[in-house]
Amino acid sequence: MKNTEKTMDKIVALCKNRGFVFAGSEIYGGLANTWDYGPLGVELKNNVKKAWWKKFVQENPYNVGQDAAILMNPQTWVASGHLSGFSDPLMDCRECKERFRADKLIEDWCGENSVELPKPIDAFTQQEMKDFIEEHNIPCPSCGKHNFTDIRQFNLMFKTFQGVTEDAKNTVYLRPETAQGIFTNFVNTQRTTRRKLPFGVCQIGKSFRNEITPGNFIFRVREFEQMELEFFCKPGTDLEWFQYWRTFCHNWLLGIGLKDENLRLRDHDPEELCFYSKATTDFEFLFPFGWGELWGVADRTDYDLTQHQNVSGKDLTYFDPETNQRYIPYVVEPSLGVERSVLAVLCDAYDEEVVGQDKNGKDDVRVVLRLHPALAPYKAAILPLSKKLSEPAMEIYNELCKDFMLDFDETGSIGKRYRREDEIGTPFCITVDFDTVGDGENPGDQCVTVRERDSMEQVRVPISQLKAYLTEKLAY
Amino acid sequence: MKNTEKTMDKIVALCKNRGFVFAGSEIYGGLANTWDYGPLGVELKNNVKKAWWKKFVQENPYNVGQDAAILMNPQTWVASGHLSGFSDPLMDCRECKERFRADKLIEDWCGENSVELPKPIDAFTQQEMKDFIEEHNIPCPSCGKHNFTDIRQFNLMFKTFQGVTEDAKNTVYLRPETAQGIFTNFVNTQRTTRRKLPFGVCQIGKSFRNEITPGNFIFRVREFEQMELEFFCKPGTDLEWFQYWRTFCHNWLLGIGLKDENLRLRDHDPEELCFYSKATTDFEFLFPFGWGELWGVADRTDYDLTQHQNVSGKDLTYFDPETNQRYIPYVVEPSLGVERSVLAVLCDAYDEEVVGQDKNGKDDVRVVLRLHPALAPYKAAILPLSKKLSEPAMEIYNELCKDFMLDFDETGSIGKRYRREDEIGTPFCITVDFDTVGDGENPGDQCVTVRERDSMEQVRVPISQLKAYLTEKLAY
Repeated sequence: MKNTEKTMDKIVALCKNRGFVFAGSEIYGGLANTWDYGPLGVELKNNVKKAWWKKFVQENPYNVGQDAAILMNPQTWVASGHLSGFSDPLMDCRECKERFRADKLIEDWCGENSVELPKPIDAFTQQEMKDFIEEHNIPCPSCGKHNFTDIRQFNLMFKTFQGVTEDAKNTVYLRPETAQGIFTNFVNTQRTTRRKLPFGVCQIGKSFRNEITPGNFIFRVREFEQMELEFFCKPGTDLEWFQYWRTFCHNWLLGIGLKDENLRLRDHDPEELCFYSKATTDFEFLFPFGWGELWGVADRTDYDLTQHQNVSGKDLTYFDPETNQRYIPYVVEPSLGVERSVLAVLCDAYDEEVVGQDKNGKDDVRVVLRLHPALAPYKAAILPLSKKLSEPAMEIYNELCKDFMLDFDETGSIGKRYRREDEIGTPFCITVDFDTVGDGENPGDQCVTVRERDSMEQVRVPISQLKAYLTEKLAY
Repeated sequence: MKNTEKTMDKIVALCKNRGFVFAGSEIYGGLANTWDYGPLGVELKNNVKKAWWKKFVQENPYNVGQDAAILMNPQTWVASGHLSGFSDPLMDCRECKERFRADKLIEDWCGENSVELPKPIDAFTQQEMKDFIEEHNIPCPSCGKHNFTDIRQFNLMFKTFQGVTEDAKNTVYLRPETAQGIFTNFVNTQRTTRRKLPFGVCQIGKSFRNEITPGNFIFRVREFEQMELEFFCKPGTDLEWFQYWRTFCHNWLLGIGLKDENLRLRDHDPEELCFYSKATTDFEFLFPFGWGELWGVADRTDYDLTQHQNVSGKDLTYFDPETNQRYIPYVVEPSLGVERSVLAVLCDAYDEEVVGQDKNGKDDVRVVLRLHPALAPYKAAILPLSKKLSEPAMEIYNELCKDFMLDFDETGSIGKRYRREDEIGTPFCITVDFDTVGDGENPGDQCVTVRERDSMEQVRVPISQLKAYLTEKLAY
């Protein structure tokens, strides 16, 4: 019997072989943990972003969108705290010169030795980490000795220079998160949209973090995209809105097809919360490598706007026409990673199904990506049964491609082509056969066979009704 | 009479006041020439990108998409020539210490003094520029003296450091163009899509250039988005495909509504061509500040793939099953800037129309963005005539927002609201009035008034037919 277990190796291989995800700069041996999205990957990724924008911006009466620059005035990172506090605790092994993240060293050692941490690692101070490593005599994972340097903080922002000279005056940073561009525009957005509280601003864009240990395929990367909402509301209503968005986000994940059994919502304990946060929930997904954070939803109070008001000297208050008061709004922030969502979607959808035995009696295993139709790269594949039918098949393609992203495949047996489409998650295969077009006097039935990916059921549909048929089935 | 001339000042003001484009990091005094896209700007920009993707990827049988990382292995820029040759010729004024681009200094001086250049400035060598400045005794635009340093080349790539140490080994660059990520993936893309030549790969993404003189609003910026196609074809067929894409691109610009009178196609003279290019055409648009480059279409021959093959040592040839030969494909590249397209669309669409006189006898001027419906941020605005009609209006909003991006406005007179929507290019205003819902026993006519932006004509449409009505009118 074939091993139909879902593993990262299988998913990474499928991504590489079918054009979802390639190693970045592969012909030059790659570049750390960068990844390029191929023809199918870019469609899947765009579809995840579109699904988010549709539910969070287009259909949500509270929210609008924006798109701020990646390069921001460095004062932004003074206000946000990233310049002083956004860092990893690094230490070197004096023996073998390898470099480690102290927090990860502790976590890994605890995992391997079944030692329970007294509190979440994020709540450890630098000194506490050092003491813990000393106390437990944690060895270097590389050489096994125990002789570490002190811990020092390494800032995770990528820096670059704008202008001709490479000096402090010209130093700018690649943003480590998209959120701050929403805060710095708060007054502009409120003024131009004439919105009253509560309202939210959504943004999708790239962020960069100089992670010491990127890994797990596209799960932790240095260059990534975020989908962030900053929801501004009246102080005192924030916990209510926190619950609203916590539920909304959960429903969105279920709505794009993730199984609830692969999700868990982890509410932060009081000691784990950032000092300014009143409530935080991590959405975690069960990847083949274990639970990993997907979405953070946090009540950030008035921390960010207050910081920006203090550092910029600009008035960032909101005038409430109902109470005739000025105040700094509270903020609820759901922050989601695009690549992580894509990976969760791929892992959740990946399936191997034994559909029979081949002629040698071996299991015939069908690999199928059970993607939500809204996320599938191709909505349908047009398959002429024979190359003689290319022309009428292409006519259907040319008509339907105005509304749907389509594949066209005329190579190999029809069974083989079905399998290829299953593997990339195409929800519908549309086969054009000789009955479709007829022959000589016979005009054919002008129908095609539509095969559904998951059930493998086939129905005969008139060409003239294909658009309506697909539109209904693909609704999101 | 009011001045209804189209100026950059008016367009920039409209962008700022209505939430299209804000100065980046504005509360901190900005950051050079960075810009943030507000609630309307992000929709317009996304619509331009969607229109490109639809016509270049979804509907084009030759092309597929991709999305490569911004950070690439530095060998990429060795192969592409950016590391050695992508630079601006800079010189300083010894008197006032101002810094200038030599090519721009010459161009500006020639323009002001009606001196015709003997050849395009891009065809000047560094020495020729220096000689020209000496010969014509061109003065410093800042202090008027003529005492310049030698010209030196300044590389336009932003550099940063990946990893902990800031040394040459860890230096990486923000890509100055998206094209190279398509070349480095050529073999992966061809293999996984099983495409035969000709085929193309489309990509939309951010690029960064450390321009010395960014300016003209969003026309020349350091951080920008590109929409690039690299079209791979058999050597010898390249000039044919060059013509195909030249025409295709022209039609695309007309298709999104740009007026042909505001476009000109400038074919490069032989001496202006890059040494590897067989043909290049610049598409230029007539901005209020003059003609500016929008799109470059170039026959790049096999230059890029050959360079990457040489530097990487990997085989980047294509096996042609028809001729049983291996060769490096030729490439035709249409490369378009997103922000420039957005600016062209805004400038082309901006209109001021005298629609009558006000009570004081002054011209009543209507500002209207005559955007193509596919590009308009809002497809329609739902306007309850009175706040008493908010509820039925919101019902219509909630139904239509599943398919269209909508505005909802219940403040001010209906005339004022029409004008607000005209100014942001909303193609349809949908007014819900008392006839719509009736009163008491009277069920109303269940119709709404739909006003078209350009003609200002109004028609009565049943609520039940609104979706079909808009779908037809908004087709792209």
